[in-house]
Amino acid sequence: MSGMWTVKVLGLGVVALSLGVELLGRLLRCLRPLGTLNEVLFFPSEVACVEHIFTSLSPHSCLCPLRHGAETSLSRLLRRILSASSSLDLCVFAFSNVNLSRAVLALHARGVTVRVLTDKDYVAITGSQIGVLRKAGICARCDANSVHMHHKFALVDGRLLVTGSLNWTRTAVQSNTENVLVTEEPDLVRPFIEEFQRLWESNDPARCLHPK
Amino acid sequence: MSGMWTVKVLGLGVVALSLGVELLGRLLRCLRPLGTLNEVLFFPSEVACVEHIFTSLSPHSCLCPLRHGAETSLSRLLRRILSASSSLDLCVFAFSNVNLSRAVLALHARGVTVRVLTDKDYVAITGSQIGVLRKAGICARCDANSVHMHHKFALVDGRLLVTGSLNWTRTAVQSNTENVLVTEEPDLVRPFIEEFQRLWESNDPARCLHPK
Repeated sequence: MSGMWTVKVLGLGVVALSLGVELLGRLLRCLRPLGTLNEVLFFPSEVACVEHIFTSLSPHSCLCPLRHGAETSLSRLLRRILSASSSLDLCVFAFSNVNLSRAVLALHARGVTVRVLTDKDYVAITGSQIGVLRKAGICARCDANSVHMHHKFALVDGRLLVTGSLNWTRTAVQSNTENVLVTEEPDLVRPFIEEFQRLWESNDPARCLHPK
Repeated sequence: MSGMWTVKVLGLGVVALSLGVELLGRLLRCLRPLGTLNEVLFFPSEVACVEHIFTSLSPHSCLCPLRHGAETSLSRLLRRILSASSSLDLCVFAFSNVNLSRAVLALHARGVTVRVLTDKDYVAITGSQIGVLRKAGICARCDANSVHMHHKFALVDGRLLVTGSLNWTRTAVQSNTENVLVTEEPDLVRPFIEEFQRLWESNDPARCLHPK
């Protein structure tokens, strides 16, 4: 009788274990991967030296008069952009910030595929970095299908979305009340990938003016 | 001996069960709740009738010349805003869209606590809805601590974040290439709640001009 009891308990254990494994599998399929990045940056950002972000030098080796070694919203944004290892798709209304331009140029220089989509009216304003990017060989197109191409987002390696109210200008970074949201959430990243591709393909490649 | 065997198997079962419960608890604390809302809306939005969103009438009972019953980016945005049952905290640079204004007024009329924070320079532009909201008794403050209060976000019931590049204007909704991201993700919502409260408290309550 006790032998039968043991068999029943063991049988129950096996059934419970298989049900548990099945349940856990279903849960993991429904839930997001552990450690999905979600971050929000607010601006204006403290004006601090960002030289060490672009070089391997210590933050305190730069001799400029700005504060050194500070973690600011701009430094965090720069690090997110510079984390690209294969591609950067950038879709931004106004782009005149030289530090952000330097980050994009650094990515291009190390072989990251960079595509830039911008507004047709703001492309030629004083201080616009679009000409600088084009001169370096980066492909930049202008949206011609709406009154303004007002997006301000970047896609890093088709995996990380950087988006918000912040235009890539000095005033926006240093003087305005702004936000930038950084996320790996697939349900948010995927639509922006599709939107970028749609806008890229719907605008004339002839507008991509490489330097002669 | 078989009695001892049964006790051992049962003991092992109890230990395995308690470990399983502990592990599941830890997993659930790390992972987001099932069904967290994440949505992205792109603009320009098709121009269509939105009358049925504000009334209980059928979409086709309106006699205006616009298309009826269409699901557009604007109609989805309006529904998200109108889903507020207790509070709406709105932080927007430019606000002149009459349909979005109508939604905010409808919330106020049904007892939802509405707070509006806007830019000091854009508050008085032609078509600004801030005066309309104030006349209805809604508390609206202007940010005086930065060059521009350039945010464009709303918090629905302190639970749902609506944010993006879209100013609440007719041009932005109908003519620009824009995005609005809607999320319940706590790691994204929480910083915006704190940012709204910080901005609200750091701006002079005397700027909240109720009608006399």
